[in-house]
Amino acid sequence: MSYQKLEQHQQQIHRLSHLSAICGWDQAAMMPAGGSEARADAMAELGVLIHQKRTAPELGDWIANAECEPLDEVQRANLAEIKRHWQDASLLPGTLVEALSLAGSKCEHAWRSQRKHNDWAGFAVNLQEVVSLSREVAQRRADALGVRPYDAMLALYEPGMTSARLDQIFGDLSGWLPSLIQQVSERQQSDALLIPQGPFPIATQQALGREVMGVLGFDFAHGRLDVSSHPFCGGVATDVRITTRYNEQEFISSLMGIVHETGHARYEQGLPRHLLGQPVAEARSMGIHESQSLFCEMQLGHDPAFLALLAPHIRTHFGDQTAFEPANLVKIYNRVEPGLIRVDADEVTYPVHVILRYELERDLIEGRIEVADLPELWDGKMQQWLGITTQGNYRDGCMQDIHWTDGSFGYFPSYTLGAMYAAQLRFALERELGNLSQIIAAGRLPEIFAWLGRHIWSQGSQHSTDELIRRATGEPLNPHWLRQHLEQRYLP
Amino acid sequence: MSYQKLEQHQQQIHRLSHLSAICGWDQAAMMPAGGSEARADAMAELGVLIHQKRTAPELGDWIANAECEPLDEVQRANLAEIKRHWQDASLLPGTLVEALSLAGSKCEHAWRSQRKHNDWAGFAVNLQEVVSLSREVAQRRADALGVRPYDAMLALYEPGMTSARLDQIFGDLSGWLPSLIQQVSERQQSDALLIPQGPFPIATQQALGREVMGVLGFDFAHGRLDVSSHPFCGGVATDVRITTRYNEQEFISSLMGIVHETGHARYEQGLPRHLLGQPVAEARSMGIHESQSLFCEMQLGHDPAFLALLAPHIRTHFGDQTAFEPANLVKIYNRVEPGLIRVDADEVTYPVHVILRYELERDLIEGRIEVADLPELWDGKMQQWLGITTQGNYRDGCMQDIHWTDGSFGYFPSYTLGAMYAAQLRFALERELGNLSQIIAAGRLPEIFAWLGRHIWSQGSQHSTDELIRRATGEPLNPHWLRQHLEQRYLP
Repeated sequence: MSYQKLEQHQQQIHRLSHLSAICGWDQAAMMPAGGSEARADAMAELGVLIHQKRTAPELGDWIANAECEPLDEVQRANLAEIKRHWQDASLLPGTLVEALSLAGSKCEHAWRSQRKHNDWAGFAVNLQEVVSLSREVAQRRADALGVRPYDAMLALYEPGMTSARLDQIFGDLSGWLPSLIQQVSERQQSDALLIPQGPFPIATQQALGREVMGVLGFDFAHGRLDVSSHPFCGGVATDVRITTRYNEQEFISSLMGIVHETGHARYEQGLPRHLLGQPVAEARSMGIHESQSLFCEMQLGHDPAFLALLAPHIRTHFGDQTAFEPANLVKIYNRVEPGLIRVDADEVTYPVHVILRYELERDLIEGRIEVADLPELWDGKMQQWLGITTQGNYRDGCMQDIHWTDGSFGYFPSYTLGAMYAAQLRFALERELGNLSQIIAAGRLPEIFAWLGRHIWSQGSQHSTDELIRRATGEPLNPHWLRQHLEQRYLP
Repeated sequence: MSYQKLEQHQQQIHRLSHLSAICGWDQAAMMPAGGSEARADAMAELGVLIHQKRTAPELGDWIANAECEPLDEVQRANLAEIKRHWQDASLLPGTLVEALSLAGSKCEHAWRSQRKHNDWAGFAVNLQEVVSLSREVAQRRADALGVRPYDAMLALYEPGMTSARLDQIFGDLSGWLPSLIQQVSERQQSDALLIPQGPFPIATQQALGREVMGVLGFDFAHGRLDVSSHPFCGGVATDVRITTRYNEQEFISSLMGIVHETGHARYEQGLPRHLLGQPVAEARSMGIHESQSLFCEMQLGHDPAFLALLAPHIRTHFGDQTAFEPANLVKIYNRVEPGLIRVDADEVTYPVHVILRYELERDLIEGRIEVADLPELWDGKMQQWLGITTQGNYRDGCMQDIHWTDGSFGYFPSYTLGAMYAAQLRFALERELGNLSQIIAAGRLPEIFAWLGRHIWSQGSQHSTDELIRRATGEPLNPHWLRQHLEQRYLP
C-alpha cells in the first residue's frame, strides 16, 4: 500500500530531523564559538538531504494512490498532513529557496550589528532583497494554493488562517483594546511596587527554575533546561530542550520565561507518543503552540493563586524579602506599561505590537507598501496605539525583531492568536473544572494539565486548528475570551 | 576529474558524520534517559545514510580513475585513505554488518546487568554469537585484503600493524616487564603516602579541571568539558567534546582523566585544518591517538615537575593539605599495584592486561580457542603475570570490558602501542628540546605541544603510522623506549 510507504518515508524524515533539532539546540546552548562554521556546513548538508526526501519524486504518486486506499480516521488526517508538508516543500523551485536562504542569512547576520548602530539605511538594502524574494515565494505559493499571497505565507505557520479572518479578529481587538490599555494604565498609576533586591546567583536561579518546572509537571526523563542567549523550546518530543537566560540582578523575567517555555515543552511531551514520527503526531500550529506557553505563563503563571504558590519557592532559594509577598509579585508580573519593545511587553499591550506588525507585513508582502515606508508607518501606529514614538529610533522600532530578516513573514499573528486561544481554553476549562485560581490554590495543577493533555496535546494534528478549538471549547476562535480575561484580571 | 568528485563526496560524509558525532556526545553527556530509544533510531537512520554514501557504487570507478590522475603528495595520501575507508565499508555484505550490529547491541545491553551479577553462563551465549559473526567478518576481510583474519581486524584500528609484529613487540615486553613489576612493587612496599581528605565539591573539581586544561593549551573556542559515565573524547576537530566523571570523595583520578582526554583533544584540535573534511586530515590510528592522550597523562602528567606545577592549582581550589605536597602527589600517581581491572591499572602493569587480551582475542578470532575456554585461560594468565586469580570472578575477569561485547576485536593492542609510541616520542623530543622535566619546570609547556603538533598532529593521515613515527623519532616503533621510561621513572 502506498500509505505504508508514506509512513515509512515520514519516519525517515522524522529521524533525520531529530538529529537536526538536537544539533540546532547544541548550536544555541552548548557549541563554542569556533565550532560554528563547520556546524553550519554540516547542518546545511543534512538540510539538503531532508529537503530531497521531502520532495522525492515518488511522493506525488504515493499520495494520489493513498487517497484512494481504505484508511481510518487518524491515517486520513496523517495523509492530509503529509500532503500539506509535501506541497510546502515542493511548491518552490530550489533556486528560489536557496536565494531566500542566502539573502536571509546575510540580512540576519548584518542586522545583529546594524540594529546596535541604529543603521536603518544599511539594513533597508538587505531587507529589500529579502522582501523581493519573499514576495516571489508568496506569489508562487498563492498561485499553487489558490489563495492571497499573504495567506499563502500564513499557511506555513497557522494553516487554515486567512488575512480576511485576521482583519476581523484584530479589528475586534482594535475596538476595545486601546481604551482597556488606557483604563488599566490609569488604575495602576498609583500602585507602588517593591523591586526584589539582588544579586540572585545563577546557580540558585537555575535550581529554582527546575523546581518550578517540576511544579508544572515537566518530565525531566524526557527533557532538560539549559542556557542560551535567546530562550527557546527545541529538541524533539521525546527529549524536549528548553532554554532561558539569566541576569544576576533580576530573576523575575527569567523565571517566568522558564514557565513560558515549560508550556511549550509540556505540549511537545504530551503529543501522541504512539504516532511518533508521523506528521499527525506533531503540534497543530504555531498559534496553538503559543497558546500552550501562554496558558502556562499568563493564565496560570500570572494568576495570583499561582504566584502565592511560587512565593515560598522563591523564599527558600533567595531568603526573605518583603518584595516576595504574593501581593507584590502580582503587582510586578501584572504591571501594564506601554513600551517600544515587543518581547518586553505585558499581555495587555502585547497585541498592539502584533497587530501593527501584521498590518505592515501583510501590505509589504502584497506590494501595497515598500520597505522605505516602514519607519514612518511604524511610528504612526505606535503613536496612535500607545502614544509613544519611534521617530529616528529604528533600533527600537522596525529593526527590533529577527523575524523579517530571514523572511518569516506570516509568523507574528501566531503570538496573539496564541493568547486568544489560551484565554478561550481557560474559560472552557473553568466551565468543566471550576475556577482556575481555586484549582491552583487547592494544589490541583495536574487536573489542569490533564485537561490540556486531553483536549490539545494528545490531539496532535488530527484536526484542523478550528476543529481542535471547537472540540475543546465548543466554538471557533472568539476574541471575546481574551477581552473577558483581561478585564477580569486588570479591571476587576 | 574523479579525484575532485571524491573530495566532494568525502566532504559530504564528513559533514553528516559531524552531526552523528555531536549527537553521540549528546547521548552520553546530555540526553535524559527517556530520550534514548528515539535517539537510537535517529542515529541508526543517519548511520544507514552514511553507510550508503561510503559504499556508493560509483566510488570504485572514481578511485580507479583518480589513481591515474596527476595528484600532489597530499592528494595521493588522501586518495589512499579514501580507498582504505571505501574498502573497509564495502568489503562486507550488508546482512553480515547488520547481524553483527544486532548481536553486538544485544550482547552489550545484556552484559551491563550480567556483569553485575557475575553471570558468565548467560553472557557466554551472547558472546558466542558475536564471536561467530566476528570470525566471519575477519575471514571475509582477510580474504579480500590477503592477510590473516586477526590482522584484518587489527587493520580497522591500527592499519599496517600485524600480529606477527605484535607477537615480536609484546614478546619483547614479556621478557622484561614481569621482573620490572616485581622490582617496583618491592621498592614501593615501604612507601607511605597520604590520601587527600574530601569532600571535593564537583563544581570546584570542574573549575580545577578547566584550569588544568588551560595549562595544557586546550582551545576552549573549539571544545568543551562535560560529564559522562564513561569518560571519552568526542565531537569533531573544530569542536572537541571531552568528558569526565566526578566523585565527591576523590579528585585524583578524575583530574588525571581530564589530562588524558585533553591529550586526545589537542591531537584533534591540531589536525590540519585546511584539509578538514578529507580523510588525510584525520587522526592516523587508534594507537597514535592513544599515544597523545598517554603522552599528556603519563609522560607529562605523571612527571614530578608537572605534579609540582599542579600542586598550587589544587591548593587554590581545595585549600592546604599535606597530601597536596608535590612529593606526595608523585607517590599517589606513580603507585604500582597489580590488580584485576584494566582501567584502574597503573602504567607499569597496564601492558599485562593488554597482552593477555591480545593473545586471547587473536586465538579466539582465528578459531584456536573457544568462548568457553576464556575464563580458565584468563585466570591462568593473570596468575602467571600478576600472581592474582580471577577464578569464579568473571565480573572482574573476562567480563570486565565492553570491547568484545560489540565485536571490537583488534582494538586492545592500541592501548599499549600508544604507551610505546608516547615513550618513544618523549625521548625523541628530549633529544631535540632537552630534558622533559626541566622543560616543564621552566614553564615551557607550549614548546612540547608545538613539537607534537609539528611531528604528529599536523601530519594527519598523510603518512603510514610507521612512516609517521620514523619521521618523528628516527626509527620505527621500538619497545625499548617504554622500558627506558619505566626504568627511569620507577627504578631510578
